[in-house]
Amino acid sequence: MNIVTLTTDMGLKDHYVAVVKGALYSQVPDVRIVDISHQITPFDNAQTAFVLRHAYPEFPRGTVHLIGVNPEASGTTPHLVVRHDGHYFIGADNGIFPLLFDGKPQEAFELTMKLENDHATFPLKNVFVRAAAFLLKGGTPEVIGRKTVSIREMLGIRPAADNLSIRGAVIYVDGYGNVVTNIMRPQFHDLVKGQPFRITFGGRPANDIRHISEQYNDVPQGERLAFFASSGHLTIAVNKGVEGVGGGASGLLGLHVNDPIRVELVLSTRPVAVPA
Amino acid sequence: MNIVTLTTDMGLKDHYVAVVKGALYSQVPDVRIVDISHQITPFDNAQTAFVLRHAYPEFPRGTVHLIGVNPEASGTTPHLVVRHDGHYFIGADNGIFPLLFDGKPQEAFELTMKLENDHATFPLKNVFVRAAAFLLKGGTPEVIGRKTVSIREMLGIRPAADNLSIRGAVIYVDGYGNVVTNIMRPQFHDLVKGQPFRITFGGRPANDIRHISEQYNDVPQGERLAFFASSGHLTIAVNKGVEGVGGGASGLLGLHVNDPIRVELVLSTRPVAVPA
Amino acid sequence: MNIVTLTTDMGLKDHYVAVVKGALYSQVPDVRIVDISHQITPFDNAQTAFVLRHAYPEFPRGTVHLIGVNPEASGTTPHLVVRHDGHYFIGADNGIFPLLFDGKPQEAFELTMKLENDHATFPLKNVFVRAAAFLLKGGTPEVIGRKTVSIREMLGIRPAADNLSIRGAVIYVDGYGNVVTNIMRPQFHDLVKGQPFRITFGGRPANDIRHISEQYNDVPQGERLAFFASSGHLTIAVNKGVEGVGGGASGLLGLHVNDPIRVELVLSTRPVAVPA
Repeated sequence: MNIVTLTTDMGLKDHYVAVVKGALYSQVPDVRIVDISHQITPFDNAQTAFVLRHAYPEFPRGTVHLIGVNPEASGTTPHLVVRHDGHYFIGADNGIFPLLFDGKPQEAFELTMKLENDHATFPLKNVFVRAAAFLLKGGTPEVIGRKTVSIREMLGIRPAADNLSIRGAVIYVDGYGNVVTNIMRPQFHDLVKGQPFRITFGGRPANDIRHISEQYNDVPQGERLAFFASSGHLTIAVNKGVEGVGGGASGLLGLHVNDPIRVELVLSTRPVAVPA
Repeated sequence: MNIVTLTTDMGLKDHYVAVVKGALYSQVPDVRIVDISHQITPFDNAQTAFVLRHAYPEFPRGTVHLIGVNPEASGTTPHLVVRHDGHYFIGADNGIFPLLFDGKPQEAFELTMKLENDHATFPLKNVFVRAAAFLLKGGTPEVIGRKTVSIREMLGIRPAADNLSIRGAVIYVDGYGNVVTNIMRPQFHDLVKGQPFRITFGGRPANDIRHISEQYNDVPQGERLAFFASSGHLTIAVNKGVEGVGGGASGLLGLHVNDPIRVELVLSTRPVAVPA
Repeated sequence: MNIVTLTTDMGLKDHYVAVVKGALYSQVPDVRIVDISHQITPFDNAQTAFVLRHAYPEFPRGTVHLIGVNPEASGTTPHLVVRHDGHYFIGADNGIFPLLFDGKPQEAFELTMKLENDHATFPLKNVFVRAAAFLLKGGTPEVIGRKTVSIREMLGIRPAADNLSIRGAVIYVDGYGNVVTNIMRPQFHDLVKGQPFRITFGGRPANDIRHISEQYNDVPQGERLAFFASSGHLTIAVNKGVEGVGGGASGLLGLHVNDPIRVELVLSTRPVAVPA
């Protein structure tokens, strides 16, 4: 295997991405490079983790994933090589790893590799590419790093729940304006168990959704719906609605990252029969 | 041959494109993947067809082209594998195929391939990638599909013509603001036959164009011109004019998709000599 | 080696880039194609040169770099194949080459290759791809071109300097809003030699910078800094500041391409002791 993926906030206009690719081709002539995204909102670890965690499992085992968002090392954010699920990840220990794996990675190594040049500048090119080349040539992380269990945590916001509701939040808005929440399918079903419910947001009861759809076309074009994405996240969308073309769910419903989303049981208001 | 192209409206920010690429590399380790475009206006079949029809003939025969715009299957839009000009195309029968080929494709097969998972979600990844892998490994569409001649039509708007004029429309505006019309070179020459003509649009006779240029530099910088693109489409442009940098033809002349464009013969107004 | 890079202003929405890639795969089946950028500001030779000159040295020798900005040939801008540092460059002689190499390239050849089709349209696809294919198959530029020493010049604006100051300008703004100047590290040190200095711009003395940082984190988040990029350019940035996300240096400080930037010695105002 000789696949390297790139996830960065460097954009596509400047020469930065090409510099990294040139260095990879120079060090690993038969490498195959796949862009995950270069349009992460700059410096946004949570978004980086969201995008990469949904992409990496599709790649063959042995793929090396370079994380080029906040890649600078410091005393508190050393460079790590992580091995998890047969994949390698190289990045700074800035809190992203627990977000990627919902907990600690299986194995982590603090990079101790000697470098010719200065660490400080452009670590994605000057450090990560070299470490990736070493791994792709069959090297093991034990040789270029020191095993560590001290991984910095940056927990995602988890929804709060009781036996009447789940109180979650928007964690991602995609290019179609689809609104992804941190409420997962199992938690939803634990609460709802076939009872009537409403998904409520934005302080407008008229927008409540009371049904989980299987696919976009379950509702008319332009209509809102809720479904579980293949990743398990409760997602709010508008069928064939998209930002700038009639408005996706984000635009139409005014929902942005960190906005609250609630799932509430709809309790019967019929009086319970009281035995005389 | 092991080339797969992707034409989608998924954009480049999210993980969706990478998920498809990861699945391709997992199923066809030596695949080479080429992005045609991921910036199709969402849900726009006509634009998808315009972009793909101009790109695919440049690729080697045997290339598999995946169409990720409106890819959901339904009773009326089954998934098709199409073989045309030695190329394969995989997409939903949503009307795009006749736009791609100016008529019916040479051979079409309705996909009958059994899938492990649910059809409904992310067919580009869950259905098209698997069908592409089968074809790239030397499989034939007959094995995974059932031949069909019932292809859904969605005819592009054709220009109307009489012996004095052609009445066409703008069908595409490119990134430079160039305005592509549905008036083709042969139809133009059938009308004009060397006579004086004017290309007229936007209700402003001052903008009429009365000459076909060979290249941009035939007119001064900032000046409008008309030429036939290599695809044969009559195109209106501004030399070195581009959206946001002085305004391309679209911005400067106020021309957008579906706006009317006319070619008219300029008739002599000299009185015809009447024999006494 | 079989790597071709592309630097163009064609954007990623249209089919143009894919057309070039398809032609490359058709003519060089095992080619590997790397996008340097397709988002050069249209027709901007200086920006093209800036991006490509920082990317190309990272690639292996033997790489062929196609320059798809202002690629049209004319009597005064013939198509050239340039060999420099073991790399090939193919483009029109529109002034870009001296900007790429800080002077004349090591060897230049005017393309004399016979073409089947018309030169005029889409030379990146119809001319450059064919020349690249010839070179990648082991052909030499002498066979498809005629050696020339007459290269068109388009000198970048160099800073002016005296023994009290350097008067330079902004030459590039990157996707993070970092402001790159044409003042280089050696010129700076020649002036400053350890003396107090100020970097001044925008007519606001409050924004003066009096220190060269090593890395972004040398200053608090949101604070401005000056450093030398790995390319040697004096660069003004804001730590974790980025356009649209709090404003990069360009947005926050109101600095754009061609704006003046000065480095001035700060002279002591203490009266010099005069011997009585």
